[in-house]
Amino acid sequence: MLINVILSGGAGTRLWPLSTKLNPKQFIPLIEGRSLFQECTRRNKGLVDATMIVLHEDHLPVAREQALSVGLADPIFIVESAPRNTAPAIAFAALEAAPADILFVTPADHVIDVNLHYMQSLSQAVQLAEEGRLVTFGIEPLHADTGYGYIEHINTRVISFHEKPSRAIAEAYLQKGGFLWNSGMFCFRADAYLDALAEFQPTLLRSCQYVWEQKKKNIPVNASFYEMIPSVSIDNAVLEQSSNISVIPSRFNWSDIGSFDSLQQYLTAGDNWNHKNVFLTDDCMQDNFVFNQDGKPIALVGVRDIMVIQTSEGMLICKKGESQRVKEVYNLFTQSN
Amino acid sequence: MLINVILSGGAGTRLWPLSTKLNPKQFIPLIEGRSLFQECTRRNKGLVDATMIVLHEDHLPVAREQALSVGLADPIFIVESAPRNTAPAIAFAALEAAPADILFVTPADHVIDVNLHYMQSLSQAVQLAEEGRLVTFGIEPLHADTGYGYIEHINTRVISFHEKPSRAIAEAYLQKGGFLWNSGMFCFRADAYLDALAEFQPTLLRSCQYVWEQKKKNIPVNASFYEMIPSVSIDNAVLEQSSNISVIPSRFNWSDIGSFDSLQQYLTAGDNWNHKNVFLTDDCMQDNFVFNQDGKPIALVGVRDIMVIQTSEGMLICKKGESQRVKEVYNLFTQSN
Repeated sequence: MLINVILSGGAGTRLWPLSTKLNPKQFIPLIEGRSLFQECTRRNKGLVDATMIVLHEDHLPVAREQALSVGLADPIFIVESAPRNTAPAIAFAALEAAPADILFVTPADHVIDVNLHYMQSLSQAVQLAEEGRLVTFGIEPLHADTGYGYIEHINTRVISFHEKPSRAIAEAYLQKGGFLWNSGMFCFRADAYLDALAEFQPTLLRSCQYVWEQKKKNIPVNASFYEMIPSVSIDNAVLEQSSNISVIPSRFNWSDIGSFDSLQQYLTAGDNWNHKNVFLTDDCMQDNFVFNQDGKPIALVGVRDIMVIQTSEGMLICKKGESQRVKEVYNLFTQSN
Repeated sequence: MLINVILSGGAGTRLWPLSTKLNPKQFIPLIEGRSLFQECTRRNKGLVDATMIVLHEDHLPVAREQALSVGLADPIFIVESAPRNTAPAIAFAALEAAPADILFVTPADHVIDVNLHYMQSLSQAVQLAEEGRLVTFGIEPLHADTGYGYIEHINTRVISFHEKPSRAIAEAYLQKGGFLWNSGMFCFRADAYLDALAEFQPTLLRSCQYVWEQKKKNIPVNASFYEMIPSVSIDNAVLEQSSNISVIPSRFNWSDIGSFDSLQQYLTAGDNWNHKNVFLTDDCMQDNFVFNQDGKPIALVGVRDIMVIQTSEGMLICKKGESQRVKEVYNLFTQSN
């Protein structure tokens, strides 16, 4: 059985104040009135046999409602009381699945054009997963992006993983070739992933199993139980350590909407941003981006290359190209609250 | 009798969204918790025998309260049902006064340091006013400001009035010398002003007299009566036409707070602006100005030389040095409402 595991536990703080802990980016209607979570669910449901959704318990109502609205009446919800990063989230899905089930793991907050390339990549990945490989999806880079990690490869063989690079290094990757964007999407048999955890992260696996067994016995598992689980990404926990890794070099259009700079491209492309009650001097029309969710009047005079995001939560004014730095002000904001 | 006539009828739209029609800039607490109206009232009350306040009827309660709070219990309020610019406003004050009274006319929304220079200028002005002259105050320019009109002069003799200049012309004025900023403050006998109106603006004077007589008979005078009065500034109506003009070249510190660029200097000087709930990346600390009256979080990332004004009315993001252009967006804003 092929199962789409949708990772919906993220808080998306790099998109503050649009995305907040209470209302993270994956559940906000952005693309023609649909959320990224709805887009993900819709995109994959026809391609798989079942859908599992891993998420924080606070978001269960909105996820249930949004899944239903795109025709997914009976997904399997895997509820966490505290977010523990991707390695534990996927472990819960693998424990829930049958050992031979293939898990197609997709973060809820990516933008992807479904086309033939997407189908082909998934098909290749499933084939390798059936052979027991841990498969990751790498995207052929379109530009020297500094917001993504990179995978160095030869065909489906992974040579090494690289952290988010500086601009100079990103440009060198692009020039040299043989580097892919690390998409954060994966495909593997449930037992292959659990075996890898047993080998590289035995403590993490044990604590996930413990929590899982408690829940199966209907013993309430609160946040402090979850806090015992190491908070580690699947990349650090398994992929960078295992030799049983394959990568699918993929050509479908993909973005992780990790910052306002990347979000902006999708919103303006479809003219899908809210310019209600926005007032601009003539010279401000072209080079600025204003998203006015709150609806209170916003006026711009003589400014260039800035992004303005107004929501009920707050107001962000960010130089274009610098939205990776939103976490700096988000940290100041959370410290003061 | 020396009477301070405080012109408080302005709407201050160049300071939108801080200043609004309902709550114009002169009544907003800006300087150490006091409004510019309070500062004006306080500054002059010890120097004059009486105070007249010309204002829109909507602002009578706030003006009464603010005047009382700075120890002025019994000013004379001259209430307009519609604003008709400065020439009619001063006409009403002149009609209310005795013919030989000296009117010291001061807009409510200026910032002035009271010092010896201020006293000297007022004293000189009163002397010339007693001789029947129409006296205007010119400020020795400190820089090539493009936001003010200029008065070309030799001593107290006015050669000509000049509109707000371009930067190049303003710099030429400063270099050449003999030019003063037109302050919008005046001093004259009530009868001298009414005589000048009779000569240059007979229609305006007659319509003001008509409204005035109706009010004296306790006949209600509504906005449509006021709309019949020509809306003209004292500069256009009288000063630029009369030969009976004198100017007092003055050296006191003065600003008309006509834009956020000028307001900003006064607020930051006293560290008197509101940076509650403002979050800045390190590189945003120095070159930006944020006034957060609303209190909702504002975050700045990577931007330079911008002014951000957030109030319950709306949000303005303005390039420093371009705040004269706020009227452009204000016009768009009012058209859409």
